Amino acid sequence: MKGPPDSIAVIGGEGRMGRWFIRFFEEMGLHVISAGRNTSITPKEAARDAEVVVLAVPMHAVGESARELGPYVREKGLLTDITSLKKEAMEEMMAHSKCEVVGTHPLFGPGEPGMVGQTVVICPGRGEGWRDWLVGLFRDAGAHVVITSPEEHDMMMTVVQGLNHILNLALGLTVMDLGVAPKELRRFSTPSFGTRLRQIEHLLFQDPELYAELNMLNPKFPSTFRAFGEVCRRLLRLIEKEDKEEFARLFREALKFFNDRSAL
Amino acid sequence: MKGPPDSIAVIGGEGRMGRWFIRFFEEMGLHVISAGRNTSITPKEAARDAEVVVLAVPMHAVGESARELGPYVREKGLLTDITSLKKEAMEEMMAHSKCEVVGTHPLFGPGEPGMVGQTVVICPGRGEGWRDWLVGLFRDAGAHVVITSPEEHDMMMTVVQGLNHILNLALGLTVMDLGVAPKELRRFSTPSFGTRLRQIEHLLFQDPELYAELNMLNPKFPSTFRAFGEVCRRLLRLIEKEDKEEFARLFREALKFFNDRSAL
Repeated sequence: MKGPPDSIAVIGGEGRMGRWFIRFFEEMGLHVISAGRNTSITPKEAARDAEVVVLAVPMHAVGESARELGPYVREKGLLTDITSLKKEAMEEMMAHSKCEVVGTHPLFGPGEPGMVGQTVVICPGRGEGWRDWLVGLFRDAGAHVVITSPEEHDMMMTVVQGLNHILNLALGLTVMDLGVAPKELRRFSTPSFGTRLRQIEHLLFQDPELYAELNMLNPKFPSTFRAFGEVCRRLLRLIEKEDKEEFARLFREALKFFNDRSAL
Repeated sequence: MKGPPDSIAVIGGEGRMGRWFIRFFEEMGLHVISAGRNTSITPKEAARDAEVVVLAVPMHAVGESARELGPYVREKGLLTDITSLKKEAMEEMMAHSKCEVVGTHPLFGPGEPGMVGQTVVICPGRGEGWRDWLVGLFRDAGAHVVITSPEEHDMMMTVVQGLNHILNLALGLTVMDLGVAPKELRRFSTPSFGTRLRQIEHLLFQDPELYAELNMLNPKFPSTFRAFGEVCRRLLRLIEKEDKEEFARLFREALKFFNDRSAL
């Protein structure tokens, strides 16, 4: 196992997740170099100077960033990223560097107070020394580390991020189309719908570009969203036909599925 | 204002919400008569003997129950119900009784510990004396009471209950169709998706018939569900075309809508 590094560069360190990770690495006792558009040190200089380089740039910029900085990372160093999709980012990091490569995806936003209890996905790329150090760093900080392939990660994210957020957005837009005032929805809220409304409002305060990219840059998302649409059409047909029996059968099948698998 | 009644009959008092209300009324110091399939007193006897009659039967049975028992309720008494849809229930209660009539819908399930902080919808039917007593009873117990028409109530429920639950069911069924193991979803959960998973699992442990009826017996639900489907298709098209700009515009429009109206 390698590490700790003499220094760690965070590229895009002025973004919200970038700042979050700078604070985290510093709290873990590391020497951090922050590089972005408005720093005195350039991303290239930082990539050359640090032993570990973390790309914390927006999703659409990670490929370009890897192409540009990958060649500058020391051969015995580590290049990693923290973007929400892993396949393209890792292909670019692998293709344009000779160093160790790891894909990282923290499954939480910059609003979380710390690493304890959070989940971090790690996709092994090239080399094991720095990867083991990084996994150890996150685990020491109290995170659950899940190690998987970029493909499986991106597939899981079509549900965990893609569907989850777009359903809240679609519900908000439907309410708007129906002309139902949110104030009225709040008055009529059940405990469960109250939670849903807070999720919708929380989502709408986020960066729209981020959520657009989350769906548009993941080539697997449309087929997951279409599968969801097909399920909705099936349920609508059952409701229109008042086929209570088949509706209840599907309901019980889902319960069985969620129960069975959880026991594995 | 009338009340308190000499006694209050809960018809369907052996169901989960029936039992919940029996306990509630008793805690409020009322004399409760419970009548159902397995009680020594019949629903008709209870409807004749009590000053206030509460129909706590399943949704599909409320019309029949009103037709059967309405004629037995004293002219100076109150007939009310606690079912999740108000239009049909109230029409039947009004048509088959001469007493005061109020529609009641507690916006919570039998798992809630008490009335404090919960919302109860009241739809005025006939008379004000008992209605004011009932509203006062719920308010004294700490509930928010929302007074509205059966039509508005049933429309709001297409979103608050209908869409809210069916989206969780549809998400669960999509995961099943995609063959993604729930155990894996849990490993890859964000804080937000973790909440969603718990909602899905909570839903699947409920009575499937209840959720089938909630959607099938509300004539306004299909058009709300179709409106949601239309929004999803629009979002899918934007994602397939990678139209980030229009996606972001919709996102911002929804934010504006949720913000504007909440200020009213």
